[in-house]
Amino acid sequence: MGYTIENVTVITWDDELKITKNATVKTDGSKISYVGSKADDINESITDIRIDGTGKVLIPGFVNAHTHIPMTLLRSYADDLNLQTWLFDHIFKIEDKLNDDDVYWGTQLGMLEMIAGGTTCFCDMYYFVDKIANATSESGMRALLSRGLTNDSDIDDYSDDYRIKEAIDTFTQWNGADNNRIRVSFAPHAIYTCAPNYIRAIRDTAQKLGAYIHVHIDETMKEHNDSLSQYGMTPVQHLNSIGLFDLPTIAAHCVHVTDEDMDIMKEKNVSFVHNPGSNLKLGSGIAPVPKALQKGLNVALGTDGASSNNNLNMWEEMNLAALIHKGVTMDPLAVKAEEAFKMATVNGARALGFNTVGQIKQGFNADMVLIDISKPHYFPEHNLVSNLSYSAQASDVETVFVDGKILYDKGEYKTLDKEKIYYNIKRVYKRLFLT
Amino acid sequence: MGYTIENVTVITWDDELKITKNATVKTDGSKISYVGSKADDINESITDIRIDGTGKVLIPGFVNAHTHIPMTLLRSYADDLNLQTWLFDHIFKIEDKLNDDDVYWGTQLGMLEMIAGGTTCFCDMYYFVDKIANATSESGMRALLSRGLTNDSDIDDYSDDYRIKEAIDTFTQWNGADNNRIRVSFAPHAIYTCAPNYIRAIRDTAQKLGAYIHVHIDETMKEHNDSLSQYGMTPVQHLNSIGLFDLPTIAAHCVHVTDEDMDIMKEKNVSFVHNPGSNLKLGSGIAPVPKALQKGLNVALGTDGASSNNNLNMWEEMNLAALIHKGVTMDPLAVKAEEAFKMATVNGARALGFNTVGQIKQGFNADMVLIDISKPHYFPEHNLVSNLSYSAQASDVETVFVDGKILYDKGEYKTLDKEKIYYNIKRVYKRLFLT
Repeated sequence: MGYTIENVTVITWDDELKITKNATVKTDGSKISYVGSKADDINESITDIRIDGTGKVLIPGFVNAHTHIPMTLLRSYADDLNLQTWLFDHIFKIEDKLNDDDVYWGTQLGMLEMIAGGTTCFCDMYYFVDKIANATSESGMRALLSRGLTNDSDIDDYSDDYRIKEAIDTFTQWNGADNNRIRVSFAPHAIYTCAPNYIRAIRDTAQKLGAYIHVHIDETMKEHNDSLSQYGMTPVQHLNSIGLFDLPTIAAHCVHVTDEDMDIMKEKNVSFVHNPGSNLKLGSGIAPVPKALQKGLNVALGTDGASSNNNLNMWEEMNLAALIHKGVTMDPLAVKAEEAFKMATVNGARALGFNTVGQIKQGFNADMVLIDISKPHYFPEHNLVSNLSYSAQASDVETVFVDGKILYDKGEYKTLDKEKIYYNIKRVYKRLFLT
Repeated sequence: MGYTIENVTVITWDDELKITKNATVKTDGSKISYVGSKADDINESITDIRIDGTGKVLIPGFVNAHTHIPMTLLRSYADDLNLQTWLFDHIFKIEDKLNDDDVYWGTQLGMLEMIAGGTTCFCDMYYFVDKIANATSESGMRALLSRGLTNDSDIDDYSDDYRIKEAIDTFTQWNGADNNRIRVSFAPHAIYTCAPNYIRAIRDTAQKLGAYIHVHIDETMKEHNDSLSQYGMTPVQHLNSIGLFDLPTIAAHCVHVTDEDMDIMKEKNVSFVHNPGSNLKLGSGIAPVPKALQKGLNVALGTDGASSNNNLNMWEEMNLAALIHKGVTMDPLAVKAEEAFKMATVNGARALGFNTVGQIKQGFNADMVLIDISKPHYFPEHNLVSNLSYSAQASDVETVFVDGKILYDKGEYKTLDKEKIYYNIKRVYKRLFLT
């Protein structure tokens, strides 16, 4: 069974961005089986469902390349505070109370928001990952999940580390599940929470299993300066010296990375995940994205957790990525709309190693979003990509496909039960915050 | 006739922000006649209409304190270009072709977008202002309108200047119209487009008529440096030396104003209109808003024209205002959510001289917006103001009141004809861009 979307405008790219009007896009099972303008070429099955794409745009689903989904539970909690107060007096205290049931429902809440906003894939780091994987499987979303690993005891042997054991169990159980919709990576949290030997142990484990690495790098000036004092190296250089980048690595934040750091990242093919909303809100600074693009790094986009954003809206991140660097560098060409759009889609898929995701292309997974461009902020139509990057809103999303399956259509969730999730979020909220 | 909104959460402030749950808000004609928690106190008329506000939030309508509404026609036109190329090779060329019919429909398109996003009032500078006033009157929105005045010929007598004459005519015809919903100000465009004596002539004219001043100040580093070379003063000092600030003044942009400039603005009670989206997009820089707030200036928010934003979405400006200064100063307390919210509402109303607008308060004009907070990005409800500033979307707007009249309700426009506007925008677009 598949879908045939007719008369639709398709945005995609190989090397360059391409807009095809009046196109037909066909799916067959989980894949895109046709993209083109000749409807006659299509092998249509009697069970196929036709969708009229007139006045609509089909884009690849967004890839949120760095987040902590269950932290939706902490959205707008303890806001506008100093980072240390926020983290130590508020966030960590509540996180200590979280159980697997909280994480399950927090994840589902995050998915309601992501799906409705056209995000089809995400890269997560948290704990109780089995519950996150359960929720992901049920929702139909695509994800690269990881157990955040922290241990700053500098010992020789981490073979008893319960966190690494958990991460291995999760990998064994979930990696490749649901037609490879769910994969599992290994996540040394950051250099300030992991001893060098611990990072080495994680790298060795991930290498044996053939897993990706997901890590926070150089988020704050404090992390950067502490690394220089402690190791005589920047965080990137320190992690490189441990050999972490010999594995495919997703580096979140990269706010204070140097020119030389970016050269290392380029050489080692490390993906640079920009989290503009979170970096601004926490006062972390502004990542050197224009330079990273010049150097040819793969720059992806993420929301970070909702506790420091405060939403999971990739349209806003795309908008911020296209805007803030122009202002800070006073160069109106710093990051173009088209580049921001690529960061939010194909670059994210590449970072996560979903190699047939992020484009509307024959043979690729049918992770696609149909956008309603009939609202006033799409008129007149001078430049569709500019309209999408600078003017669009998450609520313009009409239909969301992942792996050829519809997850959301005209405000209705097809896999998640919104009322049940709200009910449970209120219950969890009472337990965590009112008792 | 009036409306009685029951069981609603109201956000307003006198000096401090105040959230009242389960409130009743009543309107009588154009005014708010009751805000409180005791429904019994209300004098209800038999013709009153009841609205159930359960699960909704009532906020003051947004005041877009600096824009050029008809420039919706140039949304996403010639994007991501160098400022000089953009302005001289593209924008000015098209603006030369614009006629009054284009401006009328461009204005209506802008109003569709503003109203649906909860903006109830705006401060405009453009030309063919009669047409903008016509459209404003029909739409039911509140506005302070002005004819952008430019003349860099340094002569002694401007009494024949056709632009000033037009501005006076517009003032005479429209100032105070529609129950004072429409007022008219005088707008010397900027110091780089107006000779000092021309600004003096405008000031004298405005003074006689008792009008406000609306002016671009210190938008770019070039303007700042040119002013220093040409006048030996910053743009603020130059305008102050001409006596412009003896009149109530709305200063748009203020990106490069100095500490001393802000002291002058404070002393002269000049309102500082922050346009973060436009300043970022054009690479103009980042205005010193935290310092302006510390100095006690009245800081309001604007979108600027859609050609440099690219939308008229005050939620995005509020979000940017709350975020970017934290990132740039690396201080997570730089501009709090609550401050951004005030900028977008009550500070804007003060800037424009609408002194009974911008608060949900007895005796104030009923310019109010009902927000649907049932969407996932409002859960859980830790902090409503944070949710509204950081997480909300324009599409959460459900009902929009101006002067006690409903302009928009659940996706339906009550005063504007969307299909007719789209038809005419397409017609105008063809004439301007395809012929």
